[in-house]
Amino acid sequence: MNEIPTPAKFAAPQAVTTGPVQGSRKVYASPKDAPDLRIPLREIALSDPKEPTVRVYDPSGPYTESDARIDLASGLLPVREAWIARRRYATVPGRAIKPEDNGNVGDERLAPLCPATRTLRAGAAGQLVTQFEFARAGVVTEEMVYVAHRENLAREQAAEDAALRIADGESFGADIPEFVTPEFVRDEVARGRAIIPANINHVELEPMAIGRNFLVKINANIGNSAVSSGVAEEVEKMVWAIRWGADTVMDLSTGRNIHNIRSWIVRNAPVPIGTVPIYQALEKVGGDPLKLDWEVFKDTLIEQAEQGVDYFTIHAGVRLAYVPLTAKRVTGIVSRGGSIMARWCLAGHRESFLYERFGDICDIMRKYDVSFSLGDGLRPGSNADANDRAQFAELETLGELTKVAWDKGCQVMIEGPGHVPMHKIKVNMDKQLRECGEAPFYTLGPLVTDIAPGYDHITSGIGAAMIGWFGTSMLCYVTPKEHLGLPDREDVKTGVITYRIAAHAADLAKGHPAARIRDDAISRARFDFRWSDQFNLSLDPDTACKFHDETLPKDSHKVAHFCSMCGPKFCSMKISQDIRAETEAMAGMAEKSREFLDKGGALYVDAAE
Amino acid sequence: MNEIPTPAKFAAPQAVTTGPVQGSRKVYASPKDAPDLRIPLREIALSDPKEPTVRVYDPSGPYTESDARIDLASGLLPVREAWIARRRYATVPGRAIKPEDNGNVGDERLAPLCPATRTLRAGAAGQLVTQFEFARAGVVTEEMVYVAHRENLAREQAAEDAALRIADGESFGADIPEFVTPEFVRDEVARGRAIIPANINHVELEPMAIGRNFLVKINANIGNSAVSSGVAEEVEKMVWAIRWGADTVMDLSTGRNIHNIRSWIVRNAPVPIGTVPIYQALEKVGGDPLKLDWEVFKDTLIEQAEQGVDYFTIHAGVRLAYVPLTAKRVTGIVSRGGSIMARWCLAGHRESFLYERFGDICDIMRKYDVSFSLGDGLRPGSNADANDRAQFAELETLGELTKVAWDKGCQVMIEGPGHVPMHKIKVNMDKQLRECGEAPFYTLGPLVTDIAPGYDHITSGIGAAMIGWFGTSMLCYVTPKEHLGLPDREDVKTGVITYRIAAHAADLAKGHPAARIRDDAISRARFDFRWSDQFNLSLDPDTACKFHDETLPKDSHKVAHFCSMCGPKFCSMKISQDIRAETEAMAGMAEKSREFLDKGGALYVDAAE
Repeated sequence: MNEIPTPAKFAAPQAVTTGPVQGSRKVYASPKDAPDLRIPLREIALSDPKEPTVRVYDPSGPYTESDARIDLASGLLPVREAWIARRRYATVPGRAIKPEDNGNVGDERLAPLCPATRTLRAGAAGQLVTQFEFARAGVVTEEMVYVAHRENLAREQAAEDAALRIADGESFGADIPEFVTPEFVRDEVARGRAIIPANINHVELEPMAIGRNFLVKINANIGNSAVSSGVAEEVEKMVWAIRWGADTVMDLSTGRNIHNIRSWIVRNAPVPIGTVPIYQALEKVGGDPLKLDWEVFKDTLIEQAEQGVDYFTIHAGVRLAYVPLTAKRVTGIVSRGGSIMARWCLAGHRESFLYERFGDICDIMRKYDVSFSLGDGLRPGSNADANDRAQFAELETLGELTKVAWDKGCQVMIEGPGHVPMHKIKVNMDKQLRECGEAPFYTLGPLVTDIAPGYDHITSGIGAAMIGWFGTSMLCYVTPKEHLGLPDREDVKTGVITYRIAAHAADLAKGHPAARIRDDAISRARFDFRWSDQFNLSLDPDTACKFHDETLPKDSHKVAHFCSMCGPKFCSMKISQDIRAETEAMAGMAEKSREFLDKGGALYVDAAE
Repeated sequence: MNEIPTPAKFAAPQAVTTGPVQGSRKVYASPKDAPDLRIPLREIALSDPKEPTVRVYDPSGPYTESDARIDLASGLLPVREAWIARRRYATVPGRAIKPEDNGNVGDERLAPLCPATRTLRAGAAGQLVTQFEFARAGVVTEEMVYVAHRENLAREQAAEDAALRIADGESFGADIPEFVTPEFVRDEVARGRAIIPANINHVELEPMAIGRNFLVKINANIGNSAVSSGVAEEVEKMVWAIRWGADTVMDLSTGRNIHNIRSWIVRNAPVPIGTVPIYQALEKVGGDPLKLDWEVFKDTLIEQAEQGVDYFTIHAGVRLAYVPLTAKRVTGIVSRGGSIMARWCLAGHRESFLYERFGDICDIMRKYDVSFSLGDGLRPGSNADANDRAQFAELETLGELTKVAWDKGCQVMIEGPGHVPMHKIKVNMDKQLRECGEAPFYTLGPLVTDIAPGYDHITSGIGAAMIGWFGTSMLCYVTPKEHLGLPDREDVKTGVITYRIAAHAADLAKGHPAARIRDDAISRARFDFRWSDQFNLSLDPDTACKFHDETLPKDSHKVAHFCSMCGPKFCSMKISQDIRAETEAMAGMAEKSREFLDKGGALYVDAAE
């Protein structure tokens, strides 16, 4: 353990990575009816003038503008300030910061608070505060309009061009529309099938939706721990994670300076920030679960809600009676929050205060529109424990709590595993949909085998793609360091790219109308030997370009009609292009071939088969 | 392009990576009835005396023995020599090496031939030569006995210990036995549902089986190209690939020195070696597909069969009539072999000579027991082209050719894609099983999205795990360099580990009786904080250990009851262990909890649900 503080670790962060992703340009688009909304997109212009520009979803915030001017101490521009101001919530003085909020750390190790100041607000009884309340009341918020436009991507095109309307997927009962309207978003939120995590005190947020009938989202975890990391590093991890495509970021810090680190993260985050309040509550009571109580937890909820955290993981489903169900498991309880609560319950043989106080928790979270992420404290930590009684008992309770939270006006999503072999993934997904009334599922992987520490982004990416296809709305990334250590910057990127792959593969398989546009564009670029277009359209242009250059570094190779795999003589793409030209030249040839096939009977196969 | 020859590139290889995988020991086990067979296994001893030693499948050959003595110039010990000798095949003089076999390369660039000498044999009409012929005749070969013992791993244990007999998978109609007997292997081979690729001239081979009812296998591709690589590098890639778990290796060389490089690879390979003979045939005619003919192809088949190649990819399903079906594809024909044959067919408007001469090809391959890997020359090169008419028309022809090859006594597997979105994978798998009479399917991935060049080991690993679960017998790896360049040593390792993950995840999901033993062992090690056991049980102990050490480098941390993710105060595993102890101490607690649950009704959930 490196216990020696370095000055850098506690200093205010000075800079983060900025500038466009290679080959892309940040653009802002406005819906016709809402010209003052500026929805971010990343635009990839292609070298072939016949190829349309490809627009991709972009959660990276202003950091990827070409002339990005970022002042971390001031925080991002408060894009939601005017919307929220119009809703006339009470301005509140806010809870005073206490020494325990930062782990009672001495002055010499205290990281500074982000100096950006914001109007602090709280909703009152009778007011519409949460997106769920607005939706139920039939009100379309600015957030809903924003989300609708954001989700559509190139779907305006799709509506015009039948060739781009691809709906050959299998969605397992999802209800993905051709085109997303604000009213559709409102309806999904009202039904509880989608959430828009958007704390009224997170005015810097670029709103996004998490729901089965929208694009599959991914979350990246960051956070310091008792043995590692500092302020600047965590802020950079957040910016770095969204650069590569993280849709939300969870700050799982457990060490010192939690409050102050979070202030920098939230003020500079264009994406929803999630936390697990019980982590900080535990720090406040010196790390002893038995000292936890409702008062310290409530205090922490208010502290973090005022800071602008958008969703809280609450492990209220870990009930006393379920704890013994884990005793014979191969890996017991592996959720940190779950194990803390299990210990608390067991020590006094008491029902969980999170369960008993759930209504009170709802009341607090509603005031700021903090969304629930109902934690799966009893998720399996190994394939052996997947879909067992403990896990499913908790899931039923989460279904029960979902309905309570909805009745209280709160937005809810449900956390899921973990470690699940492939043949048990769909069973888990179907049960979640059934028990929780289609509230969005938010899973960690799942890992489909336990035997590959060091590669758990891959073991979990397999499960994530599958469960995303089956109906999960957001996939929590796993990095190569899972089970072994805390992710560094490169691990964060690898985790995010892996999960973008999983989420996109799920969108394709579900038949999302816009999903294949990018695949087809990159495939055409590949077939045409437009190397730069291929790099720029890829999830990670830097790496694609670097790998190509390792064998063929010259600029002339970027327009070469071959690559290093085959060399110039042998290229199948080249031969195939020649074939296409020849086939087209031979008039009627295709027709003849079709006739031949029709007569050949046995050789013919229908594409629809 | 680096066109300047370096002396090292053309020199004889001197050394390769040897020594045990970290934490493992190579052991050889003999079946009771065949004490002279020595079946290799890798044994992982654990630090907890209560934990049984875990034995894993091991294709790495003698290179991972602790006192490995490798002399590349002499080749590996000919373990099959005595078996083959007893079968009394004719000794043949062998075809003389011609300058074009090595691309007419000048002396200064000619890599030497591997000097190891072997008796060269060919079967005759009336003799049993192929494993398929033996199987159909009811003869259990040494290879079948070897394979049966190899596939069982710890299943002797499973037969004794009911707790280890795990069969909760979904096998989609596969017929995986509790315990593999030589007779079972014979029956699977006789039905054509499995192959044992084992050229009678590859006496160094440690036999293995490829079939839906055996462990899922993986293949690694190596090979030089016109723009890269040398002899020593390719031999090392082969040894390196099998060290990490490649079950077969394909040599896809297309540059100079093909014949001589292959001589080093085959003589030093304990795994089956596959090739694509059309690549070398094309080199022999100066790279012009139109100059290909039956004579040069036949000559190449004999050349490679005499060298000991175990399976040939033959693109005999690319028929003239199918070529126009590819004209409107997004990515045309992406298989090298497929595009060569398509061009040949189209240029003269002739039916493929591979199709027309298929019977003659069978006769040659049967003489040496070279297995067919019927190539999918029309596989999709993008998600857009998946499961299209061209692909499925060819697949039907491959089904037709499978029956021809079986009638000729040959072993057959079928190659598959490629690029397929998740929702189309099972359709493809089911069609292959139906069309090809359950002959083993051998797929390249498939990649479930096209947008991640640089990460295609992951995009394809997702598809590979799924198609392996659905019934594919062998998964051809994809490395991070796919679409961008030729893999180097590290890429080969990443590709192999990724595919071991996919294959193992498939075995777990299919309910292979031995698959979960390793997962459960590593999960227990994780729960018990036995860090070294966790590393040693993992697919890549070096990387797992390195990642752990990046945060907690000291030896004392290897026995620490915490890790860097949570630090000492917060560890959920630790808390969970305490819970287990407490729960066990509270006698009757579990019982009470169960009663409570039973009465609670709504909260109770049956594990069987």
